[in-house]
Amino acid sequence: MSDNGNSADRQGDGPRLLDGIDGPADLHGLDDAQLQQVAGEMRGYIIDTIGEIGGHFGANLGTCELAVALHSLLDSPRDKVLWDVGHQAYPHKILTGRREGLPTIRQYGGLAPFCSVFESEHDIMGAGHASTSIGYAVGLKEAMRKGIGEDGKVAAVIGDGALTGGVAYEALHAAGGLQTPVVIVLNDNGMSISPNVGALSRYFNRVRLNPRLYHAREGVEDRLTKLPLGLGRRIERLGPEIKSAIKAYWAPGLFFEELDLAYMGVIDGHDVHALREALREAFDADRPVIVHIHTVKGKGFSPAEEGGLEGMEKWHAAKPKSIVNGAPAEKPQQPADGPQTRHIGVSEAHRRPVGVQESDSPQGIAPERLEVPLAASAPPQYTQVFGDAIVAEARRDKRVIGITAAMAGGTGLQKLADEVPGQYYDVGIAEQNAVLLASGLAIQGAKPVCAIYSTFLQRAYDQIIHDVCLQELDVTFAMDRAGLVGDDGPTHHGAFDVSYFRPIPNVVVMAPRDEAMLVHMLRTAVTHDGPAALRYPRGAAEGVELPAEPQEIPIGTGELLASGERVALLGFGYGVAVALDAARILSGHGLEATVADARFAKPLDGELAERLAREHDLVVTIEENVLPGGFGSAVLEHLEDAFADRPGDRAHVMRVGLPDRYVTHGKPALLRQEAGLTGEAVAQRVLASLRSGEPALS
Amino acid sequence: MSDNGNSADRQGDGPRLLDGIDGPADLHGLDDAQLQQVAGEMRGYIIDTIGEIGGHFGANLGTCELAVALHSLLDSPRDKVLWDVGHQAYPHKILTGRREGLPTIRQYGGLAPFCSVFESEHDIMGAGHASTSIGYAVGLKEAMRKGIGEDGKVAAVIGDGALTGGVAYEALHAAGGLQTPVVIVLNDNGMSISPNVGALSRYFNRVRLNPRLYHAREGVEDRLTKLPLGLGRRIERLGPEIKSAIKAYWAPGLFFEELDLAYMGVIDGHDVHALREALREAFDADRPVIVHIHTVKGKGFSPAEEGGLEGMEKWHAAKPKSIVNGAPAEKPQQPADGPQTRHIGVSEAHRRPVGVQESDSPQGIAPERLEVPLAASAPPQYTQVFGDAIVAEARRDKRVIGITAAMAGGTGLQKLADEVPGQYYDVGIAEQNAVLLASGLAIQGAKPVCAIYSTFLQRAYDQIIHDVCLQELDVTFAMDRAGLVGDDGPTHHGAFDVSYFRPIPNVVVMAPRDEAMLVHMLRTAVTHDGPAALRYPRGAAEGVELPAEPQEIPIGTGELLASGERVALLGFGYGVAVALDAARILSGHGLEATVADARFAKPLDGELAERLAREHDLVVTIEENVLPGGFGSAVLEHLEDAFADRPGDRAHVMRVGLPDRYVTHGKPALLRQEAGLTGEAVAQRVLASLRSGEPALS
Repeated sequence: MSDNGNSADRQGDGPRLLDGIDGPADLHGLDDAQLQQVAGEMRGYIIDTIGEIGGHFGANLGTCELAVALHSLLDSPRDKVLWDVGHQAYPHKILTGRREGLPTIRQYGGLAPFCSVFESEHDIMGAGHASTSIGYAVGLKEAMRKGIGEDGKVAAVIGDGALTGGVAYEALHAAGGLQTPVVIVLNDNGMSISPNVGALSRYFNRVRLNPRLYHAREGVEDRLTKLPLGLGRRIERLGPEIKSAIKAYWAPGLFFEELDLAYMGVIDGHDVHALREALREAFDADRPVIVHIHTVKGKGFSPAEEGGLEGMEKWHAAKPKSIVNGAPAEKPQQPADGPQTRHIGVSEAHRRPVGVQESDSPQGIAPERLEVPLAASAPPQYTQVFGDAIVAEARRDKRVIGITAAMAGGTGLQKLADEVPGQYYDVGIAEQNAVLLASGLAIQGAKPVCAIYSTFLQRAYDQIIHDVCLQELDVTFAMDRAGLVGDDGPTHHGAFDVSYFRPIPNVVVMAPRDEAMLVHMLRTAVTHDGPAALRYPRGAAEGVELPAEPQEIPIGTGELLASGERVALLGFGYGVAVALDAARILSGHGLEATVADARFAKPLDGELAERLAREHDLVVTIEENVLPGGFGSAVLEHLEDAFADRPGDRAHVMRVGLPDRYVTHGKPALLRQEAGLTGEAVAQRVLASLRSGEPALS
Repeated sequence: MSDNGNSADRQGDGPRLLDGIDGPADLHGLDDAQLQQVAGEMRGYIIDTIGEIGGHFGANLGTCELAVALHSLLDSPRDKVLWDVGHQAYPHKILTGRREGLPTIRQYGGLAPFCSVFESEHDIMGAGHASTSIGYAVGLKEAMRKGIGEDGKVAAVIGDGALTGGVAYEALHAAGGLQTPVVIVLNDNGMSISPNVGALSRYFNRVRLNPRLYHAREGVEDRLTKLPLGLGRRIERLGPEIKSAIKAYWAPGLFFEELDLAYMGVIDGHDVHALREALREAFDADRPVIVHIHTVKGKGFSPAEEGGLEGMEKWHAAKPKSIVNGAPAEKPQQPADGPQTRHIGVSEAHRRPVGVQESDSPQGIAPERLEVPLAASAPPQYTQVFGDAIVAEARRDKRVIGITAAMAGGTGLQKLADEVPGQYYDVGIAEQNAVLLASGLAIQGAKPVCAIYSTFLQRAYDQIIHDVCLQELDVTFAMDRAGLVGDDGPTHHGAFDVSYFRPIPNVVVMAPRDEAMLVHMLRTAVTHDGPAALRYPRGAAEGVELPAEPQEIPIGTGELLASGERVALLGFGYGVAVALDAARILSGHGLEATVADARFAKPLDGELAERLAREHDLVVTIEENVLPGGFGSAVLEHLEDAFADRPGDRAHVMRVGLPDRYVTHGKPALLRQEAGLTGEAVAQRVLASLRSGEPALS
């Protein structure tokens, strides 16, 4: 394997070839050695830059040579290169005119974290969710075959982890069925975000670990007939079928060949020459071809490359200022998920104890449990609180089983995997099957918890409707990253889950206002006999004390947090923090608003909503979800029905939430300001509303 | 192959063995010959019964022996038999205590069309959507392995067509990865609902058509060493690797073996003895096993069995009274989709021309086009109108490309396949890839139309959000079967699409009130540069004349159909027919209501909604979608915002739609009555509301 990828590349003396590459065409005149040099220089540039600013790391170090090889052979954007999940596409961005922009990546107003069709004509598809590139590739090439648009070559680059996604298989099946001449580069680093699971991972290991397979398949047949001891001739005599059989054994890829895809592999993914040889051949074939390449995640950065699974996982993403001079910085590493920004718009005010003395909703929680004094240290991440809580639930009840779809770290389930491995599954990038697995477990009496990011759970929507809720199965959905996730941007914001869960019958939908409530709600969901979903935001929690023992919350009950007048702020999940902050600001303007936590979007605490509507001039609903069909819509639907015969008796409902558009990437603080989801913005809207004329009086 | 499956079985003289089978245990004492007889008797019973009452037909004739073999070996419900898509499960129902109930199947109050966990303890999972059984099986068995619930054997029966679904692959991958000891019976009849497409279908053909493969794999190795001419010894000397290679070639199933699943096949699926032998062995293996069986769809009914692809497709389902004495009835066949019931609650009244003279919304359609006189003959099916319309669009513009997911007949795309095959794709049961294929086509400049039932499109929800709408791609979603579909019941009702589309940015959501509007809306969606969804109900259209030339409708404009006073009925899609009927009834009570067609749920015609709210006491929204987050919710959201500073100036909004629960199966007419989605029910609610006290006056 070539050794050009090490950090020495960063320290070359002469001018960088890379600095002359302002577009793919600038690669066309270079020879293999020069291209190899460009790849090495690019790797150094990524290590330095991402080590300084933070961002997806390991996967991008693995694709430097591939990006160079592809763009040196192709004429982008006429030819199309599709990067499955753009976090392996930084080299592609660098080579396609965005070299200087790399230091802005994932930042508000800067380069997008993944490929973006709105950013460059070379980004053919946008993708932050895995397993989509083959489907796009087939569509693009099929359109070309019909004479639509300009003809060109099409390559899809997909990781071995992404191949566990059902939609990738559906697309492979289509490519084979239609014999669409696309080149599918299987970028096999033996890792998705976590180590791969499932049979396919073992299959790739069998193929990859066999040193005989480090060459393209094409020569196998020749070699067969040249075997020593007369074996070759004897095999000839056995007939062509036997030769095929032996050839099939000798060369890997049968899985793909059964789907009528040609297979080439395994190619050294860090050898530009070998890559170009293989890709040239693949593009020349008039049929779908898999080019199986082996790359090293974190190539050229020894803590990742040599750190085994742990090293690779730790360096999937780099934190800002985590690397200095090509080596890890001295300061302690934080979690590898990239920067976790503290919420803004949330003042200290709401961290004071909020008392049951102000509440009259049925609680089911002993009053003393509801005291939520400030914790002494920095608030934990919601993810971490969830991870601890599910371990406790699993220890309490052996029927509690956590399921992740290739996100053990991101969802906090890694702790369960470590401590109670018998009650844990990682299904790989396969959200649909995560939910079906849960359904089967639940039928048998288990209490599965699918811990899946809000945005990824979209992929299991039919299973939620058809397999869990229709069947009334006892499955819990724990949706981390509900709301604006920040740097990962629009493909990852959890902006829709309240709206997409609310129409589904039989499901309970709830959101905690702080980490103590998260613990209570997980207990509630697990104990509740039926489908339940809870959503909570990315990042740090509120800093309240965790309960010694979680308590079930009566389904469909909200909680009054502060009694005031004229205006009631009714928050859901993160919206409660915003409400409390808005109330503090309004208080400064002489208005003592009522604040309540709805806790449930479904079933809604209708009684609480009615009381707020009756006793105030204005009810403000606050949620971190799009407005159409969201929590505020639930409140409005209920109130319009409940006050049907006396519409004048209820307050006007002002809905605050995410706008009906895709929100960009950037720090959550900035994005929430942009979306008006801050205490300040809410307070301003309330004051403006009160000034603009009296709302319907109670 | 055994010949016990022919129609002679139905004419046996003695008492039927079948009549003694009141539960699976009654099969346990019978020998192979008796079991074969039971299977044959059951086939006759199904032909007679379903031929008389209608229902899923062909697939059920293929599984008689399999159901007998499985239940003769297993102890259901302790052991679990999971039928992927229950329309192959009638024999299972008959054997598990529901023999007498078969004549009620799919009828209101009768047996459910698919397996239902609410109907029998032997129905382990409910499923009307394909490709789910393996995921359930893995979950069930994994729970058993953890000591949750009672231990037992688990078998999943899945068709070759369903294996094209990505979630089935995800589950196969999990079964192999976890080495979960489940038996997966691949019921291969070479057909899903339409002939299969894609590479997997060819793979199965290669396997199935090879006569050497009609035995289990187990004997292959033995035979290898007994080859003539000394070949066996020579192969021995080549080493175990070569023997494996040859064995792999000789026996099929490599696709599965690469996923670490044991494979047995191909077994004659109509030979009870062979089935029992293979299944016994599979259940004894302590690992996941694929048992590949070959069955004949429509077995024992010659018009299906001998009619080739056309015969099988035609007899996927049987119409009522379509079979007499085991042969097709004399009268002409209607479409094979099962009974198509005329809408009820819709009077003749609204079929009179509805004129632009009453409308003041911008139309973009020449007034004369909007005359919708009664068509002379019986109204066509919406499906058929759509099929004709997309053929016309495809002929007009070569960029228009229709995509179906194994539902060419059901969606009306068969006509496109026949007449403009170059602009048509069937991706198999793979809704996710249907949408990704469309995305790729759209990037290249095509105008793809994904024609997918409302309920099945749920499976592509993430692709709609992440791959089409976020990317602002020009993809049209044509959702047939939106609303209550009738006999197929809760797994198939298209009850949620308005709610699940509405939160998505950038998409246009519309629904036609009649077939003329469907044609206009398809043109509108295809012409509109961006994502658009249109939904229309199952069954017969309204009987209006079709336009000579479709016209684009300005996005986001509704239409006033009749001007009245006090009450405005604002329909969406099928809701317009209900509104018109309600208006007719109200007119009989002396109330002339205003009637309007919203046409768009997103963007809403806010101006029209505001005007109706300002000028009336009551606005009634009517839709065939669940109420939470639906069309009525859109109207309410808009009006609450628009009248924020003068809430007393707007009418109360009464939302009429489907209830927040899963609706059962039965004729749509009955179900709509149950749901209150009829002109009569709406009129009654309006009158009651007016009586109960004055709503807010304008």
